[in-house]
Amino acid sequence: MISINQLTEPIVQEMIQRQSELEISSHTLENKATVIDCGVNVRGSYQAGLMYVKACLGGLATAGITTGHINGIPFPFLDLTIQHPPVACLGSQKAGWIIKTDSYSAMASGPARALAKKPKKTYSSIGYSDVSETAVIALESDRFPDINTLDYIAEICGIEPSGLTVLIAPINSLVGSIQISGRVVTMVLHSLEENGSDLNLIRYATGRSPIAPVKKNRMEAMGTTNDCNIYYGSVCLTTDRYDPVYEKLISQSSPDYGRPFYRIFKEAGYDFLKIDSKLAFSPAEITVNDCSTGEIFSFGSLNGDVILESFGLH
Amino acid sequence: MISINQLTEPIVQEMIQRQSELEISSHTLENKATVIDCGVNVRGSYQAGLMYVKACLGGLATAGITTGHINGIPFPFLDLTIQHPPVACLGSQKAGWIIKTDSYSAMASGPARALAKKPKKTYSSIGYSDVSETAVIALESDRFPDINTLDYIAEICGIEPSGLTVLIAPINSLVGSIQISGRVVTMVLHSLEENGSDLNLIRYATGRSPIAPVKKNRMEAMGTTNDCNIYYGSVCLTTDRYDPVYEKLISQSSPDYGRPFYRIFKEAGYDFLKIDSKLAFSPAEITVNDCSTGEIFSFGSLNGDVILESFGLH
Amino acid sequence: MISINQLTEPIVQEMIQRQSELEISSHTLENKATVIDCGVNVRGSYQAGLMYVKACLGGLATAGITTGHINGIPFPFLDLTIQHPPVACLGSQKAGWIIKTDSYSAMASGPARALAKKPKKTYSSIGYSDVSETAVIALESDRFPDINTLDYIAEICGIEPSGLTVLIAPINSLVGSIQISGRVVTMVLHSLEENGSDLNLIRYATGRSPIAPVKKNRMEAMGTTNDCNIYYGSVCLTTDRYDPVYEKLISQSSPDYGRPFYRIFKEAGYDFLKIDSKLAFSPAEITVNDCSTGEIFSFGSLNGDVILESFGLH
Repeated sequence: MISINQLTEPIVQEMIQRQSELEISSHTLENKATVIDCGVNVRGSYQAGLMYVKACLGGLATAGITTGHINGIPFPFLDLTIQHPPVACLGSQKAGWIIKTDSYSAMASGPARALAKKPKKTYSSIGYSDVSETAVIALESDRFPDINTLDYIAEICGIEPSGLTVLIAPINSLVGSIQISGRVVTMVLHSLEENGSDLNLIRYATGRSPIAPVKKNRMEAMGTTNDCNIYYGSVCLTTDRYDPVYEKLISQSSPDYGRPFYRIFKEAGYDFLKIDSKLAFSPAEITVNDCSTGEIFSFGSLNGDVILESFGLH
Repeated sequence: MISINQLTEPIVQEMIQRQSELEISSHTLENKATVIDCGVNVRGSYQAGLMYVKACLGGLATAGITTGHINGIPFPFLDLTIQHPPVACLGSQKAGWIIKTDSYSAMASGPARALAKKPKKTYSSIGYSDVSETAVIALESDRFPDINTLDYIAEICGIEPSGLTVLIAPINSLVGSIQISGRVVTMVLHSLEENGSDLNLIRYATGRSPIAPVKKNRMEAMGTTNDCNIYYGSVCLTTDRYDPVYEKLISQSSPDYGRPFYRIFKEAGYDFLKIDSKLAFSPAEITVNDCSTGEIFSFGSLNGDVILESFGLH
Repeated sequence: MISINQLTEPIVQEMIQRQSELEISSHTLENKATVIDCGVNVRGSYQAGLMYVKACLGGLATAGITTGHINGIPFPFLDLTIQHPPVACLGSQKAGWIIKTDSYSAMASGPARALAKKPKKTYSSIGYSDVSETAVIALESDRFPDINTLDYIAEICGIEPSGLTVLIAPINSLVGSIQISGRVVTMVLHSLEENGSDLNLIRYATGRSPIAPVKKNRMEAMGTTNDCNIYYGSVCLTTDRYDPVYEKLISQSSPDYGRPFYRIFKEAGYDFLKIDSKLAFSPAEITVNDCSTGEIFSFGSLNGDVILESFGLH
């Protein structure tokens, strides 16, 4: 079986080696853990964002950027193809670990979760476990973890701190925008997991989503980045069996559909739990190919008007 | 001169090294020949498909996947650029060798053909021959070749069996779909070869085609995969001279144009030879740049309706 | 700080190593300087063009080719993402050095300019200088530089001739077409430099432009290649502050807008200086994200009619 932490290690080593070129910055702490800043005190870059996304997906992806159009306006778009989608998306990229120590808290994603088995249920659902002496974790935050937090993460992962690499980017940064667009396929698998579906039926996936403009405000950035997937994210899945739940996986099936996420979020008092999770975890459109029958199904559509409203285009 | 077998060797070595990650599987037989299963007993992946296509083109290509749209429905698309088009397409990718032993038969493509000179006429037309101690061959089949067949292939190629690598994928698999989309440019060069045109006039080529959904049935898969090129494949050629035959290279110039390939194929009693070959080997549209004059010509257009009918979209 | 000449060295070394495959050709002169012909006596290839563009941008870019459409006609398109845009575009790709010796003259671009500080003002504006024992320079010409010219270039760069690599391609070649499309972002930064704007406000950039068909005539090629950017080039910029000058950066703001560049150029007696520079250095459309406020602005639009008129489509 593959080791997603071992597959990801060369990606983060390359990020460290090319840090100046990629406008990122790494430092090693006293416990020998390494932190790669991709947007806190540095600018980051599109290329750093691509590597961040591939690292979050456990190395099981191709990622590229082209300039596309929304209602005739040019924007950068992220394209993905994903191998082993249950492992890459749920076993690695899902933000399934809330790290909380006395001094630090952040949502964590990336292959290190597979060593920590966070959450355990996910790993039994997908039947995956990893063995590795190195681990890569990605933190969505504008604050660096302290040494105790890094020791804690390493300990839960069962590795030496020297084997730990932490990627960090706030949501209101370029790499932050890219990494949310990079979740367009994972949203779908997350919904399937919530639904109790057999995740190993998902064979292959591609995804495409615009990359949100960088916002100043974190809350606003949470809105625009998620809207990229909700209102303009495309997913193509190939499965081993058709399941009627697939037609519910699109954002249009949510009662909250049709308004920018930030507005809904604001009205909900900035409480994620009060928002219909169908919206927060659904792309705009999805094509499903059931390869047990050869049939193909299509649901949803892109919505340029809401996304441009969300971006606040002048 | 370049050796397409030597150029392809690092691609297949990488496939072997990354096999688990790519959802493919390699095994070495008693005669030391290597077989890489890309879709018989394994799932394969988009990334494996990209490498398969590059190997079939003798390493003389760039290949990438983005998610595009057909009549507003998202599908994965393959993009190619090709160097040395006559060598890559006709000297390597063309399915020009029918391997037939007592125990096995399959259509074969890939750079090994250049060592076997299958067919000899092609290699004299393009003025290419290869010298290599390794060979890569791609078989479109759902059945593995036996050791005698591998010995036979190696012998015809004039190499030791230990130098032979066989790629195999059935047409009703993801890699099978990708590799047919990867033939969109080769179709055009095949037609030019049939027409007796001077093939070395073709300087550069790009191509783009959707990747067909995976079908259960082999015959049906033959239809949908070919329809991707016939009804939605784009080719851009740069040539050293304009030839009026170019305007005949598109599928619209065939009397059979307008219906899914599978239906035509079925009506012809599944006999390839009874189908107008113009249809089977023509993309939907082609742009030709004659760089001896600087002129540019465009023929054909995409047909989303027939392709969605072919896919059987629900 | 990064060294753009050192970052570019592996790209040109790979071009040398893969020259037959890429349809380019390198030779080393008596002074040990290396010249890589990408279109004078060789055909070149799309992949060589991608490497040429990355070298011109000091290695600070990703570049890829897909087949897109203009008014429904397929053409190859170049996509870029750029790190350190002021350094990559102005410190490297800008054609800011007119090399003139007794025996040779050509416009030069590429990272070698940073060693030669050509022009000095640019490097003080962007606050960049390079230290390197190797240098890469790109010449837009159909004539090879002689040994004295290479000695001269090396001397101005402060390196041994053995450390110098020269890329050369005429504008009426495939690589010539690709390299002009590769300037779509640099045009914008050039205008900002002319305008006296603070260039280090430009954080990130993506660009996309069609690749012009190869023309026979150099003057005509100058027209079609520039029209790709002027009438169909897209740029997405992220900046640290909004500046009202941004809305003037598009070609539509020029009084000469609306006719193919070649026609304007011809009417101006082929004198570049008589043409409104706003047109010559402006893409068709631009999206600007001011990340100090999160605001986003869009200017201009694509013009398929003029570009097809420029290409001379039959």
